[in-house]
Amino acid sequence: MDSFFRFSALAEKMQPSPIRELFRVIQQPGMISFAGGLPDPDTFPVEGFASCADVLERDGRTVLQYGASEGYPPLRDAILDMMAARLGYRPQAGELLVTSGSQQAVDLIARALLDPGDVVVVEAPTYPGTLHCLRNAGARFATIPTDADGMVVEQLPGVIERAQAASGRLPKMIYTVPDFSNPSGACMSLERRRRLVQISAELGVPVFEDDPYGRLRFSGEGLPNLKELAGDAPNVIYASSFSKVLAPGVRVAWTVAAPDLIRSMVLMRQGEDLCTSTVTQALVAEYCTRGLLEEHLQHIIDTYARKSSAMQTALTRHLTPGAASWQQPQGGFFFWLELASGDSRALFDRAVEAKVAFVPGGAFYPDTDEQVGTVLTGARFARLCFTFANDEAIDEGCRRLGGVLTC
Amino acid sequence: MDSFFRFSALAEKMQPSPIRELFRVIQQPGMISFAGGLPDPDTFPVEGFASCADVLERDGRTVLQYGASEGYPPLRDAILDMMAARLGYRPQAGELLVTSGSQQAVDLIARALLDPGDVVVVEAPTYPGTLHCLRNAGARFATIPTDADGMVVEQLPGVIERAQAASGRLPKMIYTVPDFSNPSGACMSLERRRRLVQISAELGVPVFEDDPYGRLRFSGEGLPNLKELAGDAPNVIYASSFSKVLAPGVRVAWTVAAPDLIRSMVLMRQGEDLCTSTVTQALVAEYCTRGLLEEHLQHIIDTYARKSSAMQTALTRHLTPGAASWQQPQGGFFFWLELASGDSRALFDRAVEAKVAFVPGGAFYPDTDEQVGTVLTGARFARLCFTFANDEAIDEGCRRLGGVLTC
Repeated sequence: MDSFFRFSALAEKMQPSPIRELFRVIQQPGMISFAGGLPDPDTFPVEGFASCADVLERDGRTVLQYGASEGYPPLRDAILDMMAARLGYRPQAGELLVTSGSQQAVDLIARALLDPGDVVVVEAPTYPGTLHCLRNAGARFATIPTDADGMVVEQLPGVIERAQAASGRLPKMIYTVPDFSNPSGACMSLERRRRLVQISAELGVPVFEDDPYGRLRFSGEGLPNLKELAGDAPNVIYASSFSKVLAPGVRVAWTVAAPDLIRSMVLMRQGEDLCTSTVTQALVAEYCTRGLLEEHLQHIIDTYARKSSAMQTALTRHLTPGAASWQQPQGGFFFWLELASGDSRALFDRAVEAKVAFVPGGAFYPDTDEQVGTVLTGARFARLCFTFANDEAIDEGCRRLGGVLTC
Repeated sequence: MDSFFRFSALAEKMQPSPIRELFRVIQQPGMISFAGGLPDPDTFPVEGFASCADVLERDGRTVLQYGASEGYPPLRDAILDMMAARLGYRPQAGELLVTSGSQQAVDLIARALLDPGDVVVVEAPTYPGTLHCLRNAGARFATIPTDADGMVVEQLPGVIERAQAASGRLPKMIYTVPDFSNPSGACMSLERRRRLVQISAELGVPVFEDDPYGRLRFSGEGLPNLKELAGDAPNVIYASSFSKVLAPGVRVAWTVAAPDLIRSMVLMRQGEDLCTSTVTQALVAEYCTRGLLEEHLQHIIDTYARKSSAMQTALTRHLTPGAASWQQPQGGFFFWLELASGDSRALFDRAVEAKVAFVPGGAFYPDTDEQVGTVLTGARFARLCFTFANDEAIDEGCRRLGGVLTC
């Protein structure tokens, strides 16, 4: 298109996210959507959150002023307390940064660590928002397969070696969602966690542990975070968020990492957005310190346990036996179906006609030409989100899907 | 320092902002600070803003969910109404983007337009947050002088020509704060505004009009925005913010620009932070639609008129005649002093000993080695913010400054 502007090379290359394009297609009356990875708005703690607005009057002079780039002190305290419970130790103040969603954590880390052409090891499949962000920084991707126990860590040394051979550079980072991966729902086994932390330290390649879903476990036993296993070592960067445990609209998340990395991220964000809204930080802090978050967590865990069971039941009932296989998740937001045959993009088109939507697997893999080393693709997979639809819609949506999914 | 991380070339080069370093020095008991460009917290509309929290309960299901990257619809409507009053026409929906502070607008535009090594024309002096952000994008700077009527636009064709000759590239953008510049407080004359818009269109170099202070005029006659003068032409990118007219802690700002540039910014932000907090957007929208913003504006304009007069009186009373010259501002936040002799960095050290702080002029100029073409520096200047201190502190601070400022 003819434009007045001379766009950057990056902007010329950027494409709308394929998922967002799908979302346009599925905005139709009567559509049942398992596509978006959204919390159920019925679970939002509207009244409890609104009751925290006292803080806007009580601390108005602080809350309305510019805040520190590192975060609003009462929220930082609340997060450090939560981290102490989760990691078994209280991180130092210099190890914590509050960000505007964990998307911004990925962005700031990319700016701090990546030069154009650098390689990041990602699970295949992985979260497309991270791919989009790392792509912004000019990254290429080395993909590592996953199975029911998460990243196949046994293959990591080989993947890193091949990526280095193909690109001439040691990868800068390994990105993983060990608890209830988006999209696969898988939970990394303890043995693989230990091995991943060890390989990362030995090879000098940091691990970014993205943990938005870790507290949303409704069955099975909790496993230690990579950050906990790494202890004092600097090689694990940990990020989590209030988006899934409270509400995405607050846009408040945090990163725990070695102080020198945090310092670099702070410098980057001073040129990016100065600080996260003190107004929302104060509301979230108030929500935590009143004990409302822990109460609310129990409520959504119960809700999501029920909904995931509903989807498990409905898929079993409505899908032709043998047409697809999947693992019932123990937490998080997603079912990840592997089709016995055919292509999930073609299935998507038939499903949309039958008024049910999901996200075809290809969206969770880097483009073929962005991958270095062995190329992996997701044409046989489909992501179904079970948290957004209500129980009735879950059953009816799976019935419609069963009608278009044949062996 | 020895680190586990291999930082990016950009991160290796980044230095803490010199202004933030100064802020560390001046955190002392008894210090009167004219340094920070902060609103007076006494002016924050704490009660009115807190009263808007109804919206968190009323629209909780929407407010707590992920929002569109383009912004929360009721806020977008309120902004389009304000823009219609200010620009004389209502921008199209596709021309508007809500951002997390205007700092993010600069960042997204830099990502959309700049390749490393590209040149941006900036007023000298200019806002350091913009320099920091453009530096992140690998920009170099062509500086253009300013006087009491803002950017010396007459020199613009020559500056652009020299920058192109020195860098081999036509500059990608011209950055200006035409109304009450930070730091100079100057307001660009109407003739220069017309000429700037014309030169930009003729040479194909877009103008970024950063307008955080435009509505804070307490004397003199309002002048049309560059965006208004440009009319339908795409060459002016307009940005403004709620930071100075409501409160910085909300981190809500907006950009009005040609749809193709807005589309590119939206794509960039989807990898950066997805969207601005819907929670704060809803609070700000409520504040606007209840008519509270217009009421509050009249209040802060009156307050800042009084404070700027207090500083004018105090500077005249306490500074040795001839030791410095300045222009009384008609709006905004700042006095910009030109010293008759000496260096403002040395004056800063003496001033801090006397317990009064300001920002030395050098902070508002790109580093010498970042400039292409003629190099400008600010060693003779000092920025004094009149909005933060109370009337008594303004007088006493100027008295202390007078004691260390000699001809």
